[in-house]
Amino acid sequence: MLYNIRIDRKKVIYIQVYSKIKEMIESGLLPRGSKLISTRELSSMLEISRSAVISAYELLEKEGLVYIQEGKGTFVSSVCIETNNQWSIDWNKKTSDYASMAVNLDIIKTELKHEKSFISFKSIAPDDRLFDNEELKRAFLNTISLNGNKLLNYGYAKGYEPLINYLLNYMANKGVEVSNKDILITNGFTEGMDIVLASITEKGDKIICENPTHNTALKLMKLNSLDIVGVNCEEDGINFNELREVLAKNNIKAAYFIPSYHNPTGRVMSYEDRKTLYNNLKKYNIPIIEDGFNEELQHLSDHISPITAISGRENGVIYIGSLSKILFPGMRIGWILADKELVKVLESVKRSRNIHTSVLDQAIFLEYLKNGGFERYVKRIRGIYKEKHEIAIEMIKKHIPYKWISKEVALYILIKLNKINSRELLERCHKRGVVFTPGDIFYTDDKGADTLRLGFSRLSIEEIKKGITIIGEEARNLIR
Amino acid sequence: MLYNIRIDRKKVIYIQVYSKIKEMIESGLLPRGSKLISTRELSSMLEISRSAVISAYELLEKEGLVYIQEGKGTFVSSVCIETNNQWSIDWNKKTSDYASMAVNLDIIKTELKHEKSFISFKSIAPDDRLFDNEELKRAFLNTISLNGNKLLNYGYAKGYEPLINYLLNYMANKGVEVSNKDILITNGFTEGMDIVLASITEKGDKIICENPTHNTALKLMKLNSLDIVGVNCEEDGINFNELREVLAKNNIKAAYFIPSYHNPTGRVMSYEDRKTLYNNLKKYNIPIIEDGFNEELQHLSDHISPITAISGRENGVIYIGSLSKILFPGMRIGWILADKELVKVLESVKRSRNIHTSVLDQAIFLEYLKNGGFERYVKRIRGIYKEKHEIAIEMIKKHIPYKWISKEVALYILIKLNKINSRELLERCHKRGVVFTPGDIFYTDDKGADTLRLGFSRLSIEEIKKGITIIGEEARNLIR
Repeated sequence: MLYNIRIDRKKVIYIQVYSKIKEMIESGLLPRGSKLISTRELSSMLEISRSAVISAYELLEKEGLVYIQEGKGTFVSSVCIETNNQWSIDWNKKTSDYASMAVNLDIIKTELKHEKSFISFKSIAPDDRLFDNEELKRAFLNTISLNGNKLLNYGYAKGYEPLINYLLNYMANKGVEVSNKDILITNGFTEGMDIVLASITEKGDKIICENPTHNTALKLMKLNSLDIVGVNCEEDGINFNELREVLAKNNIKAAYFIPSYHNPTGRVMSYEDRKTLYNNLKKYNIPIIEDGFNEELQHLSDHISPITAISGRENGVIYIGSLSKILFPGMRIGWILADKELVKVLESVKRSRNIHTSVLDQAIFLEYLKNGGFERYVKRIRGIYKEKHEIAIEMIKKHIPYKWISKEVALYILIKLNKINSRELLERCHKRGVVFTPGDIFYTDDKGADTLRLGFSRLSIEEIKKGITIIGEEARNLIR
Repeated sequence: MLYNIRIDRKKVIYIQVYSKIKEMIESGLLPRGSKLISTRELSSMLEISRSAVISAYELLEKEGLVYIQEGKGTFVSSVCIETNNQWSIDWNKKTSDYASMAVNLDIIKTELKHEKSFISFKSIAPDDRLFDNEELKRAFLNTISLNGNKLLNYGYAKGYEPLINYLLNYMANKGVEVSNKDILITNGFTEGMDIVLASITEKGDKIICENPTHNTALKLMKLNSLDIVGVNCEEDGINFNELREVLAKNNIKAAYFIPSYHNPTGRVMSYEDRKTLYNNLKKYNIPIIEDGFNEELQHLSDHISPITAISGRENGVIYIGSLSKILFPGMRIGWILADKELVKVLESVKRSRNIHTSVLDQAIFLEYLKNGGFERYVKRIRGIYKEKHEIAIEMIKKHIPYKWISKEVALYILIKLNKINSRELLERCHKRGVVFTPGDIFYTDDKGADTLRLGFSRLSIEEIKKGITIIGEEARNLIR
């Protein structure tokens, strides 16, 4: 840098050198702690006398801008850089409508903050104490030994090919006809859903979904400027009369449904209902986004094939899968299984957004699945989550005045309270160190004010018991 | 599932059982290879005779829908599922304008396909043979031992905190005033750029950038529906007269610049030019997106501080950093350094899109940086890339009839040819097993038809020599 200094030979030279270096330091051009080149070198480069450089360096040292380390050289001090600070953008006023909406819909930013010591029923993520990281280490070392540096360079937007092939086979074993389909690997369900919505809908299009439904999906529909049409599915699953009426009356562009371990109700849609749903949507030529994000919980109870299996060779179902809710959410791996032509389009959108999902993670994930780590893990956790679920149900029945509760063995339970506002209840429980998710965030209308979701996967049995007892006490206090 | 079969006792029972199971198999409800429950159990569950169940199973076996494994049970065959295939969506007509644009701008989909044996000057990714995966293994094992399962569960949208702190310090050492700033970790530069554009611009806004510039950035500006205003920077860097004129005439919402190792010219903007650029944009209150994606190549030559360092405590610069081009592109780690208030907004956008970047990757990456792996690696590669660059320049001068070439030590060289169309040249070279990137994709207007970019980082010296010789021969053939 310093050799760029232009010297005006008509003016005092050492002052010019001093001023220029000072400016560079103050403006951040010469980083803190960096070493100035030696006085000998600089003088020869600039073709000036060495004593001029020494004088300049001394002046800088006096002002505390540089310091000398004996025998090592002259270094830039950790001075605070001076700036005029005239320009200040108020970023909260400069952000786009889209970004402002993302902030407003970001429930983490609006919810009651809580301490780590609280009993939190908010999370529906797996209990990480159950992860087997020895298996993971083995998977990592195996895959690095086998594939080496290839895993560290750019991969393909569609995903790591061996993982795609594994998942195609995995889906085929669920009864899915994969010959006309393909897979795109995504950073989890969330990215998959966002890419699908951006790729098959336009601003203002209508989308149909269950009411209530997964909050993240609702958020993404709103961020993609869609008009959300909810179909009630509270106590007895989807109301098909309502569905048929809604379909007849509206011009619907796409549908979003969670047939297995529906979030937040935990319900598993029966085979008959899946077929009825599929045929109704097919009648109106409405593509179905099937959320399989909890499909893998099938290991906790009976298996029912996804709607994409029912669709056979037909190509109207876009299935989004993920193992996040039971396995390694931190790795952010999900997949979209859809018609081959559609996947080609989704691939270009994925590439434009972040090129591809981490190849290393995909390879580790595949190795873990292939070695049977996933199956062993699911066997181990099955009993643990089932026991927690049974105890939670028992405690709710005993302590909480509810209208109905979901009973399927999911990692969460939706409770419809008896004339109690769940946000009022939450405020009281918060004071006693217990938090949960108020159910209103899952609803497409204002029906959810008396509902709440309890996620228990990361809590101990003692915490579940204590937490639900407190919620029950506060609910009864509210009734009085 | 099977226990759900409803039996009409007025009709033949075994036929009902057979039909129902057949339907379940054909519709995918019973997955291939899955085991039917025993005839004894099913008969007791349905309260029908065991012989009725046996008859049903036999009929299924005759039709090849199930097979019996002696002593193990009855299993669903790998039959092809029958579907009526009445419903077929033409997905290419159903995709959104946004997705269609992503496909059209996806250069990988339109470029000439080439064999693996070709000499390809297309890539500007690092040579993965230079990666030290022993260091990486150590980093992985260290971080898993230290942090364990936490790394595998959900993390924070903003990023892995120890990595954020490391990078804040890293940026401070580049002379950046970080006290009023914060960092968001992204899936590489591409995601960072997309999130920033979506967060600070509206459809139709004008954005100013260098012409030519990074093709991915141009693609993202188009996908975010921006109106692109290019400022020429071919031979001598930014034309500041043109810049001032453009700024005076247009209402510009944001600016995008690549001061270090500009893509595709490879140019490093001088300190003076950085200051001039900053002050001009500041005058019009235009936020600057500074692309630092190649900043780390500084190790290949002199260090010049990023514009965000020049801005001091002012908050108008949004810096997007990445180590992808020298280190582990497959891991997709980048970061946005910006005003604290803005990062809060970007964080919500990031959360809405994919929750967060892989925690495991972030932790491995941090461990690798902390242990000095990065520094050792950069020392090792420096000489290698420098040598390749020197040879490439020498060969170009000898063989290719050019108007000008970029000479900075980047991993790529832009060549402006002498009255030759680079796509015509590419077609000829392709026939001889050599490919490169035609320069037009980097231009905001039609000026780039006579330019091409040569990326040489992944080629051997022999390949560089051979490839450039062929390009030169074909260029001279075109002139004749």
